[in-house]
Amino acid sequence: MTPDRSLCALVAYDGTEFSGFQVQANARTVQGALEAGLERLTGHFCRIHGSGRTDTGVHAHGQVIGFTLPWKHSLDALCQGWNRYLPEAIVVRQVVEAPAGFHPRFSATARTYRYTVYHPVAGALENVRRFPLFERFALVEKSSLDVGAMNQAAALLVGEHDFATFGQPAQGESTQRRIEELYWSAETGSLVRLDSPQLQRLVLTTTANGFLRRMVRNLTGTLLEVGRGTWQLADVSAALAAMDRSRSAPPVLPNGLVLERVDYSEYPHLFL
Amino acid sequence: MTPDRSLCALVAYDGTEFSGFQVQANARTVQGALEAGLERLTGHFCRIHGSGRTDTGVHAHGQVIGFTLPWKHSLDALCQGWNRYLPEAIVVRQVVEAPAGFHPRFSATARTYRYTVYHPVAGALENVRRFPLFERFALVEKSSLDVGAMNQAAALLVGEHDFATFGQPAQGESTQRRIEELYWSAETGSLVRLDSPQLQRLVLTTTANGFLRRMVRNLTGTLLEVGRGTWQLADVSAALAAMDRSRSAPPVLPNGLVLERVDYSEYPHLFL
Repeated sequence: MTPDRSLCALVAYDGTEFSGFQVQANARTVQGALEAGLERLTGHFCRIHGSGRTDTGVHAHGQVIGFTLPWKHSLDALCQGWNRYLPEAIVVRQVVEAPAGFHPRFSATARTYRYTVYHPVAGALENVRRFPLFERFALVEKSSLDVGAMNQAAALLVGEHDFATFGQPAQGESTQRRIEELYWSAETGSLVRLDSPQLQRLVLTTTANGFLRRMVRNLTGTLLEVGRGTWQLADVSAALAAMDRSRSAPPVLPNGLVLERVDYSEYPHLFL
Repeated sequence: MTPDRSLCALVAYDGTEFSGFQVQANARTVQGALEAGLERLTGHFCRIHGSGRTDTGVHAHGQVIGFTLPWKHSLDALCQGWNRYLPEAIVVRQVVEAPAGFHPRFSATARTYRYTVYHPVAGALENVRRFPLFERFALVEKSSLDVGAMNQAAALLVGEHDFATFGQPAQGESTQRRIEELYWSAETGSLVRLDSPQLQRLVLTTTANGFLRRMVRNLTGTLLEVGRGTWQLADVSAALAAMDRSRSAPPVLPNGLVLERVDYSEYPHLFL
C-alpha cells in the first residue's frame, strides 16, 4: 500500500480553449484536464485545488495547485508522466512536497497578474480589423493611450480599499483588498521601429493580497478609459469611493490576462 | 459585366495551424483559405499571389498578396466581406488597387522578418518543460545567451554575400543576397522583474532584398550557437565562406518567425 503524499505543483496554461480553471459539467476546464491527466497516469482520481479560479480565456504562467496522491516514485517522474497526458496548452512546471499546513488557496499571501495591451504610439489604427499575432495574449487598442495618466490613476487605487465597485466577492467574503502594486510599463524594442502603424506593448502589473472576481479586468478597463481621455482621475476616485458595481468601466477581454505568480510568505521557497 | 480589377492586400496570420502559405493538395494553407474565402464572397475563384512563401508554422504580420477580381463595390466592403469568410487566424488588413506593373513578389525590394527568443537572464531553466504562453510565437532557450556575441556575429553576415550555406534557392536562382539589417534587441519590461527564473525577450530583426528558403531560421540557429558559446565568431565567418549547406547550424523552429513587412521601393505608400 503506497502512502498518500501531500503535493503541490506549479502550472502554466494557455487559457484560450478552456472554460476557465474550475471544473464544470460539460465544459473543458483546466482543472478537469489536470485531473483527467493525473487519473490516466496513476489510475486514481484525485481532486485538485487551485490557488484561485481563473475565468474563461484567462491564462496562467504560475498557477499553484495542491492535491493528495499515493505515489512511490520520484516527483520529477510524476511531473514528466503527468505532462504526457495533458493537452499542449497546459504544462505542469514542477511538483514538490507540500509543507505541513499548506493550502494553495488559503496559504496564499499575494497574487500577481499581468495584462498586456498593444496601442499605436501615435495616431490611430485605421483599416485594421484584427491582429491574429497579438490578440491571443493581448488587447489591441485602436488609439494611442496616455500611459502617464493611466499610471497616475493606478496610483489612486494602490493600498487598502473596499473594491466593491470593481469586482464580486465569493459568498460571504468582504470586498476589502490591499493592492501592493498596480502600474503600467511600456516595453521598448524593435516592434516600435518596425510596425506601421507603430505598435507599443504596454503591460499592467498588479499584486494584491487577493482579487475579487473580475477585479483585474475591471480595473484594467477603468485605467484604459483614463488612457483614452474618457475618464479623468477624479472619476476613478469617485468610482472607487462609490462602492457600487455599476460604477466600474466595462471589463476588458480575458485574452490579455495572465496569472503570473502566487506568493506564500510562510513558504518562500516552495518552487525553485 | 463587372470589369476585372488588379488589387493587392496586406494580410496577417497566425501560421500555427497551417501547412505554410502556398496552396497544396490535401493540406490547410493560408493561400488556400484566402482563395476559398474570396470565392465564397464573390462566387468567383481567383488565384492569389503572395510576396513569397512562408513555411509551415511561420506567421505573418505584413504579408502582401495580389489578385485580379471583378468587383464593383468599395474595396473596404471587399475587405470586410472577405474577413467574414476567413478563419480567425487570418485577417486581411487592407485591400488597395494595385499600381500599374505591380507584382507582389517581383516588385518587392526588401523583406523584414523577426524571430523571438526568450532566455533566462541568468542561470538555466531547470525543471521547466514547456511554456504554453510563449512557445506559440517564440523559442524558449533553456540557458542564458550572450547577446553581445550574437550581435557581433550578426554584423559579420550583414552585406552582400553568397548565402549558400544558410538556405536553398528557388530553382535557377542565385544564392547571392544583400542583408541590410540583422541584429538582436533585448526587450525591457516587467517580465524581467516578475518571472522566476527571470525571462528576457530577445528579438532578431532582419531585412534583406530577399531570403533563401530556410535562411532566416538557419541564420537564427547559427547566431544562437554563438550566444550559447558553442560557436565562435570565426566559425560563423568560416561557415559563410564555405558556401556549403552542411556547414549551417540547425535551423530553429518556425514558431518564433514572423514575416513582418514587405517593402516596394517603387510604390512606397502602397498601404497606409
